[in-house]
Formats: sequence, structure tokens, C-alpha cells
Amino acid sequence: MTIIANPPPAETEDVARREAREPSSLVARFGPDEPLRLDAGRSLAPFQIAYTTHGTLNAERSNAILICHALTGDQYVASPNPVTGKGGWWAALVGPGKPIDTDKYFVVCSNVIGGCMGSTGPASIDPATGEPYALDLPVLTIRDMVRAQAMLVDRLGIDTLFAVVGGSMGGMQVLEWTVSYPGRVFAALPIATGARHSSQNIAFHEVGRQAVMADPDWQAGRYIAAGTRPHKGLAVARMAAHVTYLSEAALQRKFGRNLQDRTQLGFGFDADFQIESYLRYQGMTFVDRFDANSYLYMTRAMDYFDIAADYGGSLADAFRNTRTRFCLVSFTSDWLFPTEENRAVVHALNAAAASVSFVEIDTDRGHDAFLLEEPDFFAAIEGFISSAARMRGLT
Amino acid sequence: MTIIANPPPAETEDVARREAREPSSLVARFGPDEPLRLDAGRSLAPFQIAYTTHGTLNAERSNAILICHALTGDQYVASPNPVTGKGGWWAALVGPGKPIDTDKYFVVCSNVIGGCMGSTGPASIDPATGEPYALDLPVLTIRDMVRAQAMLVDRLGIDTLFAVVGGSMGGMQVLEWTVSYPGRVFAALPIATGARHSSQNIAFHEVGRQAVMADPDWQAGRYIAAGTRPHKGLAVARMAAHVTYLSEAALQRKFGRNLQDRTQLGFGFDADFQIESYLRYQGMTFVDRFDANSYLYMTRAMDYFDIAADYGGSLADAFRNTRTRFCLVSFTSDWLFPTEENRAVVHALNAAAASVSFVEIDTDRGHDAFLLEEPDFFAAIEGFISSAARMRGLT
Repeated sequence: MTIIANPPPAETEDVARREAREPSSLVARFGPDEPLRLDAGRSLAPFQIAYTTHGTLNAERSNAILICHALTGDQYVASPNPVTGKGGWWAALVGPGKPIDTDKYFVVCSNVIGGCMGSTGPASIDPATGEPYALDLPVLTIRDMVRAQAMLVDRLGIDTLFAVVGGSMGGMQVLEWTVSYPGRVFAALPIATGARHSSQNIAFHEVGRQAVMADPDWQAGRYIAAGTRPHKGLAVARMAAHVTYLSEAALQRKFGRNLQDRTQLGFGFDADFQIESYLRYQGMTFVDRFDANSYLYMTRAMDYFDIAADYGGSLADAFRNTRTRFCLVSFTSDWLFPTEENRAVVHALNAAAASVSFVEIDTDRGHDAFLLEEPDFFAAIEGFISSAARMRGLT
Repeated sequence: MTIIANPPPAETEDVARREAREPSSLVARFGPDEPLRLDAGRSLAPFQIAYTTHGTLNAERSNAILICHALTGDQYVASPNPVTGKGGWWAALVGPGKPIDTDKYFVVCSNVIGGCMGSTGPASIDPATGEPYALDLPVLTIRDMVRAQAMLVDRLGIDTLFAVVGGSMGGMQVLEWTVSYPGRVFAALPIATGARHSSQNIAFHEVGRQAVMADPDWQAGRYIAAGTRPHKGLAVARMAAHVTYLSEAALQRKFGRNLQDRTQLGFGFDADFQIESYLRYQGMTFVDRFDANSYLYMTRAMDYFDIAADYGGSLADAFRNTRTRFCLVSFTSDWLFPTEENRAVVHALNAAAASVSFVEIDTDRGHDAFLLEEPDFFAAIEGFISSAARMRGLT
């Protein structure tokens, strides 16, 4: 296998910058009279949420599925991403006749607050200064993201969501939805996630943040005003994170110690091994589609996530009286959100007498498995959604 | 637990720089007529090896134990490190009356070739230019390190080493000793290691190298001449590596989600969590004692390590006809060199009909356990060394 690390087209960054301001997707704008209350104790106004929809909201407004994206995801869940030109990040799962069937359900997916694909984030203009917020944007939490999504759902005239679905950071949002708005979620599908970020996960995020902040082009966060971009630091952060998304077994299977374009070791510091070339490519392409400060905000939001902390340390208390039907999914080789983290949520839901099912998918593809076509995984989602739809009277 | 990240004293770097040139330890110098043959196809001459010894070589010259250090270790195995002022890195294991008893054995520990504590490395002066080698030093291998050690052992007048002992990269050297010099090692103790570097381990090393090389102060390797130091990049590399030395369980036990000096989240990008402060401290202190280019060379040597590759892919063939007695040690929570990697060596040794024992130590302290006082680990080493000493007629 040879990975050719083509430099992306020169206009890519301009596309990303334009999308951050004026996304190709739908945009919900909230004015100075509709502030977003933040956990940091401040409010954000005005602000906007970029989102896509697929399918049709039924007359009862009862068939809406909110999909929450992960750390570096966006609203383009099932339609081409205008920056990368690639298909939607869950296009295999979401669409007509797909496990999340847009012929039956009205799918909404929004770029999270703090993101860089059209929702208000650190690259957005701060009306107080006329400059990008940079680090003047308050640090955001998963609950802030969910609060903004709830305002979008209100705007769309939807009271109760049929389902909320998401993996990794998206799964955190799913869990937060069921806790913050217990009456507004009929079914919840948190995937490859946990109710809090572990010490090891915080550690890896901190490595990534330090890599960004070590780049002199980061300019204390004011790189847009300075006309620079901390591409090198952000690429290192992405490389470090990317290793954690894969499993040791999958790396060994895909790359092993295979050499890149060579029949023998090069005795230098160029990419000798395919895994090195692959990682460099991951870092290089990431910086053209993602904003460095957004990366800091997203990782911080995940680090701060700890549902039980708001309930005296009892996760079960957080879910007390929930009427949502849950299905949790974990992957055997995911060491970022191992099965035990997912199972801790299941145990808490059981303790809260909630309706909960749990599926562990056997795969060597690591945390990233939730973004890949895994037949058992897709079957589990389709089964749970179909069953919930019958209970909801949608079929 | 509060970690106070004091900046190290300003003179630390000068001490490190002086030690790199003129170590406080013993130094063996090899002149232009005694070149070190390198796997890269070139030779290194002149060169020097910095080393320490403890105990007394007996009249038969049969009681010598060579200890091989890990990636960022040095020759100060049992005596204070002149740069950090701390005790020897294995002082709990090596000394009078200790499991490796310097009242009985003559212990030798040398800084590896490519290191930065007095042995010739990338910071040493290239006689051809009068400038530091930087990346003009050929890329080194574990076999090159061992070849240099063999020249030191020759210089000391020792034919057969009673034992060769080391963990991690040190364990790689132990294995290489038994393969390169099968008649010169009576007993071998490779700890927390493997016969090749895995794809995931190469990936983490590549992240670290890219972090160093992304730092503009790295200056394409010529930072000494430029009067700069890539401290920020090297600190990020160290942080990323350090996470891999610990286990998820130990991180959770030691740090969990404990906050640093605060009763609540700071809603900023300072170190909120103790694990962040701990990692930053690890990065900050590392750069004052280690050379960035040496870090590139050490990680590359480990990546290149693959004993079987030189024997048609058969690890057992590498050990064919060995008469060395082996004891391998792994740690249950070590995910950098998991038990299965160690066990693969055991299986190969069994296939080669070698004398081999294997101990898996139950601990949650991860890869770093080999540097810590683990009673079962120490007992295993003491037991194996004592038994081998009886066979060798030393007691």
C-alpha cells in the first residue's frame, strides 16, 4: 500500500474560511435578544448555528432525529462536505433506505457551538471588537452545545425529538440531551462514549493543545488577525489524536512494519514506514479543514464533561425518572472509550430503572469503528431505531 | 496532590551541555584507528563511550553485569545524575545488597551511542566540520549501540558477560547482545520489551519526532550552531510519550479528574486538571536534561529494531544455538510492550530450545513499572540472577 501525500489544492483554506462565515448549509441566526446561556457564566449573543436536514418532518412533528457530531465532525452528515469535497461523514448510515432512513425520518445535524463550519466559534467575529473572538470566546461545555441545539430544535418547531444519535463527543451530547431535556428525547443512541472523560483522554487532549500552543504561528490564539496559521502544531495534535482512534491490532494489520516506497530502510528521518506516511498525511490534510482554536475548544469541552459531577457524583441520579429508551454501543478494540466506560453508563441507567439495551461490537478497528461501515453495528442501529419507531407509532 | 511546576535552575542546561562533552563518569575513547562500524554502512571515528561501574571485577573476569538503559536513560544507573542531581535511575535495584548486588557483581552501564550524556551523539563535534554532527551523524540502530558496548567490554578486558540486563530499549539491546554475540552472554534479562517495534509504537515515535521537527527552533537540526533549542517541540514529544508509559488505570488512580489548585473548573486553557499539570511538568523538566536530536536518533533506533527481519522473518532462527539463559519479564498493564510482545520472544526461544523463564508481573503501573520498586519484579530478578550465579560458579 502506497500513500501519496498530495498537497491539497491551494484554495482549500479559503473555502474553509468562507464556510466558517457563510456556510453552504442552512443557518439559524439568533439575535441579541436570544442569547445562549453558557456554563462559563456568560452569554453568547448574537450567535448562529449551521445545520443540514434530510427527509421531511411529519405533520405530528414526531419523526425528528438529531445527529450529534464528534470532535472534528460537522453538519455534513449525509451530504458532501463543501471544504473537502468528500461525502457526508455518516453517509453510509444516514440516507434513503439506510439504517437511519431519511425516507421515514427528518434528520437534523448541526455544527456544534465552538465549531468552525458555520456555527459561532472562536474564528467568528466578536461584535464587541470587530475581530475574531479567538480565546475571548468563553470556554464551552457539552451542555452549552446541547443548549444551543435545543434552541435550534425550538426554532424548527420540534418539541420532542424521536431520537438523538451520536458517537464519541457526539455520544456525550446524546447523554447530555437525556439529562438536560429528559422530556424531549424519545430514544437515545450514545455510541462509543462515556459519561465523563478519563484521565488518560484528558492527557492526550492536553498533548494536542500544547502542540497547537507551542506553534509560534498560533500567536496566543490571534493567528487570524496576524495572518498566520499554526498548521504545524495542529498537524502534530491531529497525528497524536489519530493514533488513539485506531487499535494496535488494526495498525499492525493495515501497516505493520511495511516500508513506504522502499525495499529497505532509508537510514534517515523521512517517512520510512507506511504508518509514518499515513500519519503525516492525516496531519497535513486536517489543518486545511479545521480551525486550531476550535480544536482547543472542542477538546476542552470533552475534558470538562462529567455528568455525575453535577449530581453529587451519582450517575444514576442524573438519569433518575428518565423515560427515554436507550441503546448504547461500544466496540471491543476502542481504547479511547473502552466498553467499560460505556457499560458504566448502562449500569447507571439500570440503577435508574431506565429502558436500556447495550451492544458491544466485535471489531479490531478501534474508536474509529463508529464512523465505518460495520455490518453488526449498522444492524444494531437499524433494529433499535425500528423498534423505537413502532413504540412511537411512526410505522 | 499539588504539583508545583517550578522552572528548573537556569544553569541546568549548561550542566547538560558540559556533561555531553566531558561527562563526570568514566569515558572510553576510541581513536581514528578503532572505528565503530555502523549498520548505515558508514563508520564512526573517533568516538567515545561514557560509562559507570560499580563493584569489583573478579580475578576470573566472570562476574560482570552489563546494564542497558532505555530511551531517555543514561549511564547513571546507581549513582547520582550530575545534571538532575537525582539518584541513579535503577538505584533501588542496583547497589550493595540490592537484587543486582554490587558486593558480588561488577556492574557496567554505558550511555548508548547517539546519546547525550557523554557518549558520541548528534551533539558531538564532527571532526570533518568542527561543528556538531546534528543530522550528519548516520542513523543508528540497536545493533550499533550493542557493537559499541562490545568494544567497551573488550576494552575492559571482559570476554563473557555474566549477565546483560535492561528494560524497554534496554531490553532490545539485551536481545541484540544474545543474537550478535551469542557466546559472550551467560544470562540475559530482557524486561518490558519486544523483538521488534510495533506499528503503534512507531506511530507514537513519529508524533514525537514531528513535534520536535515542527519547532522552528529546531533549525533543521542545527540548533546548537544557531544558538536556539527546540524546547517546546521536545516538551510536546515527551508529553505524548509519557502518556504511553503509564496505564489508564494508574492515571485514573493517581489523577482521575482531580483539579489542580482549584475547587472548580477554570473555564480557560491553563492546567485545570492535575494530569495536565503533571504532563506539562514532565515536558518542561525533560528538555533541560535531554538533547532533541538524540531523541530523534533514539526513537529511530527503536523503530528500526526487528530481529527476525535479519533472519528471514524467523525469530527462532535468530536464537538458534544460543546457550544463554534467559528470563523475560513483562507487566500486565504495559500497553507499549504488552505481555504478548514479550511472550513472542519466549515462544521463539522455546522453538530454539533455549533455556528460558518468563515472569508476568501484575501491576497497574504500565510500562514505567520496570523503573519502579515492584517487589515481585525485584524478587524475580534477584532469583534469576542468584540462580544463574550458582550455575556460573560465582557463589
